[in-house]
Amino acid sequence: MTSRTLIKDLASLPDGPVHVQGWVEKVRDQKRVQFVILRDESGSAQLVNSVNDETAATAATISGLMHGSFVTVEGDLKADERVKLGGLEVKVRSLTVESVAKDSPIADDSSIDKRLDWRFLDLRRPEAQLIFRVQTTIEHAMRQHWIDEGFIELHTPKLMATASESRAELFEVPYFETTAYLAQSPQLFKQMAQSAGFGKIFEIGPAFRADPSYTSRHATEFTSIDSEISWIDSHEDVMQLHEQLLTKALAAVVERHGADIEQHFGIQLQVPALPFPRIPHAEVKAIVEARGHTIERTDGDLDPEAERQISAHVKETTGHDFVFVTEYPSSVRPFYHLRPEGRGDVTNSYDLIYNGVEISTGAQREHRVDVLEAQIVEKGMNPAELEEYLDFFRYGTPPHGGFGMGLARVVMLLLGLGSIRETTYLFRGPTRLTP
Amino acid sequence: MTSRTLIKDLASLPDGPVHVQGWVEKVRDQKRVQFVILRDESGSAQLVNSVNDETAATAATISGLMHGSFVTVEGDLKADERVKLGGLEVKVRSLTVESVAKDSPIADDSSIDKRLDWRFLDLRRPEAQLIFRVQTTIEHAMRQHWIDEGFIELHTPKLMATASESRAELFEVPYFETTAYLAQSPQLFKQMAQSAGFGKIFEIGPAFRADPSYTSRHATEFTSIDSEISWIDSHEDVMQLHEQLLTKALAAVVERHGADIEQHFGIQLQVPALPFPRIPHAEVKAIVEARGHTIERTDGDLDPEAERQISAHVKETTGHDFVFVTEYPSSVRPFYHLRPEGRGDVTNSYDLIYNGVEISTGAQREHRVDVLEAQIVEKGMNPAELEEYLDFFRYGTPPHGGFGMGLARVVMLLLGLGSIRETTYLFRGPTRLTP
Repeated sequence: MTSRTLIKDLASLPDGPVHVQGWVEKVRDQKRVQFVILRDESGSAQLVNSVNDETAATAATISGLMHGSFVTVEGDLKADERVKLGGLEVKVRSLTVESVAKDSPIADDSSIDKRLDWRFLDLRRPEAQLIFRVQTTIEHAMRQHWIDEGFIELHTPKLMATASESRAELFEVPYFETTAYLAQSPQLFKQMAQSAGFGKIFEIGPAFRADPSYTSRHATEFTSIDSEISWIDSHEDVMQLHEQLLTKALAAVVERHGADIEQHFGIQLQVPALPFPRIPHAEVKAIVEARGHTIERTDGDLDPEAERQISAHVKETTGHDFVFVTEYPSSVRPFYHLRPEGRGDVTNSYDLIYNGVEISTGAQREHRVDVLEAQIVEKGMNPAELEEYLDFFRYGTPPHGGFGMGLARVVMLLLGLGSIRETTYLFRGPTRLTP
Repeated sequence: MTSRTLIKDLASLPDGPVHVQGWVEKVRDQKRVQFVILRDESGSAQLVNSVNDETAATAATISGLMHGSFVTVEGDLKADERVKLGGLEVKVRSLTVESVAKDSPIADDSSIDKRLDWRFLDLRRPEAQLIFRVQTTIEHAMRQHWIDEGFIELHTPKLMATASESRAELFEVPYFETTAYLAQSPQLFKQMAQSAGFGKIFEIGPAFRADPSYTSRHATEFTSIDSEISWIDSHEDVMQLHEQLLTKALAAVVERHGADIEQHFGIQLQVPALPFPRIPHAEVKAIVEARGHTIERTDGDLDPEAERQISAHVKETTGHDFVFVTEYPSSVRPFYHLRPEGRGDVTNSYDLIYNGVEISTGAQREHRVDVLEAQIVEKGMNPAELEEYLDFFRYGTPPHGGFGMGLARVVMLLLGLGSIRETTYLFRGPTRLTP
């Protein structure tokens, strides 16, 4: 394994013997000379074989090559400016087929559903691999910030005895003599960490919603980025953490993948300025209405078009891609969002909107058990069903807050893609449970 | 939030005003002077209040303090060598109770089951928090190595249409019109990434086993550390990655937490030497038998006592805490483990044993579809049920291998603890689904 050279590293090597391995992307089989485009996880390069008596065996192998087959190549690297692909080629000395591929059932113009059926072939596209390299960079930059700031990483259980968010959209799991539920979010458990005195925590892990919708933004299983911190004064402290994390993530993406993103997605990515704009929910509604959009929802929440409109407004007036919509009405927020002193109608909460789509909800949590109980009743829920949760607050919990954010949405919006199906390794929806 | 000082940082500050926040660990309420031990996520410090007319209000608050309550304190820091706890104390100017605690239902001598019932209080113990700081450091050090080596991070789905490992110990989930299963491991999906040409991948995420056992090492939900790499020559390449990751993780733990671990767990942790010892399975059996242990299992696999014995042998002869037991018999390995050329009886696989307990299984995977099909039949399984998996290999897959490792086991063995119940944030077992 040690002797293998990644294709991206060929350019920095002197002419001479190399050992490359990857899959066959293209074959041009001419009478006197054969060309093979070989791709690996780092890039692609041209292999060349002059057909003559000495190379007859290799020529026969190349003539029979199937696209997608994985091969090992011993050859001689030669820099050559005339070669469009990287200005170099590898003269084949030997080519061994490690794994033969059948004809690919998908093509460049296949539907997204067909591509998802054959996701492992679909993911061989360079731009698909770039998506997951970008995702890797985002996560690592965020984790580095959390680590630098003394956060503890949690792995909260996904099997629960009760619902984490609501009784709706809940997956049930027969569990020995009882029934478990799949966690809709780590909400309860990350709050528990505050009661445990952990101070500052983060988690990146799966969350599950038995959501029957088929939009470009919803999945039944998704990767949730969560963080929770103690001793905040308000949701402002949460927003500051949130915008720092995203700025560091974007900076790392620009540095490592900026050129590749421009090449494959035609986007010139920029690091967002701090602080992100903040606009109270009531003001957002007025701005959106002034722009001619009437929100049809009767519960007071924003609709997707309102999110697009406020995002457009912010982009036009400040040039910013992000906007925190703050102080959501308590009517559209869960019982555990804290309401500021003397204002029962709003919450210390926010949604973060990125390029027109909501990617996150954050809030200060209510930590006073009597207020919590009252808000549970007000929401038509039964405090008795939440006894274990309420216990966190009966044994002491500092003021705290946090956010949850969908990873696939962030990557989708960052790369200007149309659906989280493209930015999820293996998408799960109501009719999609394979591969 | 900005003005808060962490208790661990008090020692480096000059005498003067400070703002600290945490929970009340102990109160000594004397007639003329009151002492409070305040703890936060970073450590503990002594608060002091001289009782007189001027401080009467504060004195009354302190007299009524419940253990576990979260408080905000404004005070004056004073270095004082006579104070055992850190050589400093904080003279209270004001103390505000942010959240009152009821009397704790658990004590130092509570059973593990009782402690798990009240896990959020149990986790307030400094040694419990240290466990999760150590875990955080292990994960970050491993991820840093993966990132430095160009790995892609994956989040594979936990909802699957088929079993990932076997039909046994499988959680079923009613899923719209059909049935899903919870992933027992990311095995299929990390192999898929090799077929997709991702090259090198890692994932840290949950895995689920409907395992009815009640040992100190088993859980129904656990955090699995997984990695998979292409273009290996054998399982030796996987072991090299594996031992590098663990050595970096241990080095980071020693550096960041070595002194704390010695204080709380009485262990002088050392960074393991490279390479880790490797002993073939057949040789292990001979060594264990020579030490007087007869393996009762008839399938040829090792039993827990054999793992303890070989670990003791290696410790005695080399001083090493880790040992790779290699070339397991194919009879006790899954169909997808590759068998070396001309030897159908063994596999290119290993188990990693740490301080007497198995923490991981790794292997080179079989990537030749005809061999895979034969091995599936040999294991009494039906290739038709594995069509989607087999397709990975019909469209080309390079030679590859990887490992899966239980995070809670690693932390348990590293800290010399008796059960993964101590090293799992919220343990899940057949009769444990809460909190």
